[in-house]
Amino acid sequence: MSVKFRKLALIGIGLIGSSIALAARRQGLAEVIAISTRKSETLEEARALNLGDIYTLDAVEAVRGADLVILCTPVGAYEGVIKTIAGALEPGAILSDVGSVKAHVVKVVGPHVPEGVSFIPGHPIAGTEHSGPSAGFPELFAGRWCVLTPAADVPAAQVDKLVGFWEAMGSHVECMDAAHHDMVLAITSHIPHLIAYNIVGTVADLETATQSEVIKFSASGFRDFTRIAASDPVMWRDVFLTNKEAVLEMLGRFLEDLSVLQRAVRTGDGPALEAMFARTRAIRRSIISAGQETAAADFGRPHEAPPAPAAPLFVREHGGGDDA
Amino acid sequence: MSVKFRKLALIGIGLIGSSIALAARRQGLAEVIAISTRKSETLEEARALNLGDIYTLDAVEAVRGADLVILCTPVGAYEGVIKTIAGALEPGAILSDVGSVKAHVVKVVGPHVPEGVSFIPGHPIAGTEHSGPSAGFPELFAGRWCVLTPAADVPAAQVDKLVGFWEAMGSHVECMDAAHHDMVLAITSHIPHLIAYNIVGTVADLETATQSEVIKFSASGFRDFTRIAASDPVMWRDVFLTNKEAVLEMLGRFLEDLSVLQRAVRTGDGPALEAMFARTRAIRRSIISAGQETAAADFGRPHEAPPAPAAPLFVREHGGGDDA
Repeated sequence: MSVKFRKLALIGIGLIGSSIALAARRQGLAEVIAISTRKSETLEEARALNLGDIYTLDAVEAVRGADLVILCTPVGAYEGVIKTIAGALEPGAILSDVGSVKAHVVKVVGPHVPEGVSFIPGHPIAGTEHSGPSAGFPELFAGRWCVLTPAADVPAAQVDKLVGFWEAMGSHVECMDAAHHDMVLAITSHIPHLIAYNIVGTVADLETATQSEVIKFSASGFRDFTRIAASDPVMWRDVFLTNKEAVLEMLGRFLEDLSVLQRAVRTGDGPALEAMFARTRAIRRSIISAGQETAAADFGRPHEAPPAPAAPLFVREHGGGDDA
Repeated sequence: MSVKFRKLALIGIGLIGSSIALAARRQGLAEVIAISTRKSETLEEARALNLGDIYTLDAVEAVRGADLVILCTPVGAYEGVIKTIAGALEPGAILSDVGSVKAHVVKVVGPHVPEGVSFIPGHPIAGTEHSGPSAGFPELFAGRWCVLTPAADVPAAQVDKLVGFWEAMGSHVECMDAAHHDMVLAITSHIPHLIAYNIVGTVADLETATQSEVIKFSASGFRDFTRIAASDPVMWRDVFLTNKEAVLEMLGRFLEDLSVLQRAVRTGDGPALEAMFARTRAIRRSIISAGQETAAADFGRPHEAPPAPAAPLFVREHGGGDDA
């Protein structure tokens, strides 16, 4: 299905907003792209990056005449934004967002959405640890999932239109209930981030001497956590403020399991440790075969070549192959 | 300093052993490379990959005449191996290893090392989630640290020779006390692995329907943990059996911090959450500037391009740039 929007309004222009702008333009999904943000420095950055067609600090101006409005600010700002723009939303427009939690968004935004506007919350499950308008790139959503959580009374044609928009940017789209989304994301995203932030914080508290060694030897596992823990702090604050119940539930399960593992370490229970470590490989394989991950070792991180030897150190007298 | 060994014996030929074999051959660091392993399938795999010059199931044969012997089996096998090979070790030879824990290795291997043999435990801080002889590649150690923990009575010339060996394979080398190594690695490596195994285990316990969604939406953070949790289960069992004290100490600190974070989520303490999430970025930056990580977004993981649009959807009438 070909998707055409007259005017796409992006309220907020961080990593996700800027990636939508770039992808939508590349795919020709909107005649005009209007960008609104609260800070003038950010707006100027977006303008310098040539992300859209209209740049304004006034969200109302951005929204006026738009048939697709996407909230791309941190979730904590949504309530203020919807109160500001509600009166300017056009009948027939689609209002969506990109927040990492959905039930909370339905709760704070829903009541302000005027009659005739289709509110379809969304969550593109894509991102990097970088933030801000310059972090965006048009391939960000390609091959990634986007979850939509439309209420039952939203016209199917409007949902189809938004599905088409995301598909055109390369996403796979799935519709589900907002509460279910929040529970699944709690374990796939929110708890991993909480834990990553936590362990990096534990290291930040170590004595200075040890800390510099931790940085030096971080390639042994820790550095993967630091990538996750480098994500936008305000966005993540809002996630934990707005998906509290699901996060605490999943954190409880995680901690129960960790107690079992801790006990196995304390008692030196080798068979239990090995069994727990062996069963997790199957999950990794499923993720790779589901196309959600590269099978390349170490995420395909670059490994530099070692320096060439200055001169042959030996005359090789035996058989055997050359450099493998 | 140019390093020359007459015969390098590798006991065990997994990811690390095979990478040493490939790097040592490429850099011309040994006249002969002898490979010994317990299982004949593994030995035949090593032979098919042309990793060495001599292949044997008999560790004693591999060690005989070797001036550098490196234990590359899981740490749990060391005691058996040293008892087997002790009598065949040549005076003047260097005995080293690649295990992830060091105090335990000193304790179980040290007493069996004959007079005249220099025992210099080692730990190349490098690896991927893959294991087995076919997982090795000669660049694995390039730009990575290798820690050596020589006892005070080992001749400096022997330490220098082993340092030169690792440097020739591209490593940076640091010598330190075995107990200190174990403490630093507990937080940079062992705890991250324990946590990653744990959260993947928590997911493995979810109902089947939710689990398939977790796999689908794993790109949101979880998949990074599954990579770490795909590492060799036997190796990691041995790490936790042999570095118990340091692991439990660091796990205690981690859990204390997690309680604080959990409480901030429960009480909805936004400023505390944001402050905790903000301070971890500095550590990431240090790791990148220390050359231990790529600054590329998402580890440089491949992002596919979205499909090209079938046809232009709009005639663009306004100004503005092309695809950015």
